[in-house]
Amino acid sequence: MKKNAIVAQSGGPSPVINSSLQGVIDGCLAYSDHIETVYAGWHGIEGVLLEDLIDISHQLRKEIELLRYTPAAGAIGTCRYKLKEEQEEDYHRILEVMRAHNVGYFFYIGGNDSMDTADKVSRLAKEEGLELVVTGVPKTIDNDIGDEEFTVIDHTPGYGSAARYWTSIIQNTNEENRGMSVSEPVAVLQAMGRKSGFIPAASRLADPEREMPLQIYMAESGHTLESLAENVNRQLRRTGRCIVVVSEGFDVGTLGEAHDGFGHIEYGASETTVAQVVTNYLNKVGLKVRGQATGQVPGVLQRSTSIFASRVDIDEAYHVGKKAVEVAMTDGTGWMATILRHWDSAAYDPYFDKVPLTTVANSFRQIPAHWIEAEGLDVTDDFIRYAQPLIGDGWPDIAIENGIQRFTRFDVQFIEKQLPDYVPVRFRKG
Amino acid sequence: MKKNAIVAQSGGPSPVINSSLQGVIDGCLAYSDHIETVYAGWHGIEGVLLEDLIDISHQLRKEIELLRYTPAAGAIGTCRYKLKEEQEEDYHRILEVMRAHNVGYFFYIGGNDSMDTADKVSRLAKEEGLELVVTGVPKTIDNDIGDEEFTVIDHTPGYGSAARYWTSIIQNTNEENRGMSVSEPVAVLQAMGRKSGFIPAASRLADPEREMPLQIYMAESGHTLESLAENVNRQLRRTGRCIVVVSEGFDVGTLGEAHDGFGHIEYGASETTVAQVVTNYLNKVGLKVRGQATGQVPGVLQRSTSIFASRVDIDEAYHVGKKAVEVAMTDGTGWMATILRHWDSAAYDPYFDKVPLTTVANSFRQIPAHWIEAEGLDVTDDFIRYAQPLIGDGWPDIAIENGIQRFTRFDVQFIEKQLPDYVPVRFRKG
Repeated sequence: MKKNAIVAQSGGPSPVINSSLQGVIDGCLAYSDHIETVYAGWHGIEGVLLEDLIDISHQLRKEIELLRYTPAAGAIGTCRYKLKEEQEEDYHRILEVMRAHNVGYFFYIGGNDSMDTADKVSRLAKEEGLELVVTGVPKTIDNDIGDEEFTVIDHTPGYGSAARYWTSIIQNTNEENRGMSVSEPVAVLQAMGRKSGFIPAASRLADPEREMPLQIYMAESGHTLESLAENVNRQLRRTGRCIVVVSEGFDVGTLGEAHDGFGHIEYGASETTVAQVVTNYLNKVGLKVRGQATGQVPGVLQRSTSIFASRVDIDEAYHVGKKAVEVAMTDGTGWMATILRHWDSAAYDPYFDKVPLTTVANSFRQIPAHWIEAEGLDVTDDFIRYAQPLIGDGWPDIAIENGIQRFTRFDVQFIEKQLPDYVPVRFRKG
Repeated sequence: MKKNAIVAQSGGPSPVINSSLQGVIDGCLAYSDHIETVYAGWHGIEGVLLEDLIDISHQLRKEIELLRYTPAAGAIGTCRYKLKEEQEEDYHRILEVMRAHNVGYFFYIGGNDSMDTADKVSRLAKEEGLELVVTGVPKTIDNDIGDEEFTVIDHTPGYGSAARYWTSIIQNTNEENRGMSVSEPVAVLQAMGRKSGFIPAASRLADPEREMPLQIYMAESGHTLESLAENVNRQLRRTGRCIVVVSEGFDVGTLGEAHDGFGHIEYGASETTVAQVVTNYLNKVGLKVRGQATGQVPGVLQRSTSIFASRVDIDEAYHVGKKAVEVAMTDGTGWMATILRHWDSAAYDPYFDKVPLTTVANSFRQIPAHWIEAEGLDVTDDFIRYAQPLIGDGWPDIAIENGIQRFTRFDVQFIEKQLPDYVPVRFRKG
């Protein structure tokens, strides 16, 4: 008997998360003898809990194909709803929804937390004798899933595009900084990656020959505001300008703390971005040249800007989505599709495989220590060799209609609910 | 007798400032019977004052042609050196440098301040009987030169590209915000344009049909933090999400002030971007939904990101540079090349003309009041009709070499100095 599938996204988006979604849809369509309809949880697991499901296998083919170049998660939505072990009611509700809609396949696109959730759903379904195949699809711009030997996953879909964002804008910022150096000699840019430095590290790809006055402060770098200012001043004495990429997780000490209760400055001055703390600090104590430092916080733009998507990443995200369906059909429940590479090949040579969800659940990795250069301001050539193939070459073919970008717009209509209303555990008062 | 030319850039860059530079170079090369060599002031007027000049007419043709797609001012540099009336010594030094290098033509690429400087140099040269033709080339992403009837200049080169930046990233942010609305329902983005709202206004071009929950707070809008929070909450009740574009010149009242001398929070918390103040305020008092607001400060990225350059803007910037040379040869000193449009044409129909430097010197314009919609949160369709043609269609052909963008790299060698060293007035101690 044919079963239906549900696909859902989790956590922050990436420029290629929809490409994985398309991979899952196309994968399911290819198994139309086993899979009837593909539903999406509207805004991820929240949509599953609330029974807010939309039929995405019967959308216009054009809209499905536009997923390839549609960034972020506007097509089916995502959420940050956390499913802790003790939220048993939520887990049972998920199984109930699966049962009510004859769902035999659940594809969960997300990071390490989400693989933990997927693992629990998979095990609980087995315990309850529900025929449900749960398969993970990796996604995170942070590249922080797996192990530091890269045996679980080589890199996560999304990372190549975030890396390409930083590669590109650091090049642009270098033109800016070079041109404005007599007035604004220091450009500070804040990169995502609170605990893991893969994103700021990718700035190095803008300048593999190390010709720019670029300093990279990863969360792992061990620097302080004071040592940062010293480094910048040393750079300024040498080259008259400096580009500082700082992780949002860079430790600015007490200056980054919230200072509630200070009366009239309570709202305005109590929460400041790392980039702003660094910029202020340099302007006031550290900047030993005339001119000002400027602070840039691209924020969500680094995970949602379509034109910086890597063509390699777009392809791989698609294939890993499709691979997940294959794994589900062939190997059953409890796996995540993965990307690995043949390290012994001269050219970049990736392949797709699977790992148990239990292996990735709540895994976490940082940049391997031996890829960080001794002064903690840069990555090594080994990192460059690792990351460079992931940003690809050339610009993606973003469709333009009437002068503006054309993205997927599904017909968002919830399918008929079969169950009584439910309030997810975390939405309950008190 | 043939004369040489000097070209210099002034103030903040744009993605197409180098296209105007190429226009000036090509214009001068076309008048090779009158013009011998084109020099660039390295870092603008500072380079002229310091006699730091490079020969740019004899650079490799490939590098000159790459100017078309090279953003910001890294090719010949720019500066923010202000030349006030009373800095007489500086003005005389400029003329001295012109004399020493047999310069008969001075092309100054800049905004309103720079046109004032150009005007003064032009008049002083006349007074002193120096044969020097001074011609302005307009440039500013702010679009704040001229008058609000658009008779002096229709728009400035650079504006179309800044507008295209905002058109594009608001579309991307809409995908982000739509996808993340249950967790991060409000996206705040800070746009340049301290006093004049043309840049944030361009966000509207991302959504001319007004389907997005987009609110635009221009410097001219008259809103306060409190009314902003009210508007956002109204939007959230209606659509569950909101995109807020706020000018860096938005008045956040006392919350935006520097608070020096507060002990341990002196550096970290004393200077905060408008976007951060707005984000903090919404998160703490205004945001009547679950979830967080996020703050984005693209900063210099909006004036230096090559891929968002408008193809129309690139072309026009080039032609206005070339036009400046024509005006210099035909009409003599004291003019700025300008772009106007035939308003009676059905299709966008620009043409190039000239205006006296005295007319533009220190001119300033904001968005005409009748282009701001009654609630002060949006621009009218008349603004859309004005600005839409300027962003063009499609992506510019940014060259990629070895996976990264290829920008102009001139051979930067200063020509031999003829004069004693000089310390510009503003660099003097005390």
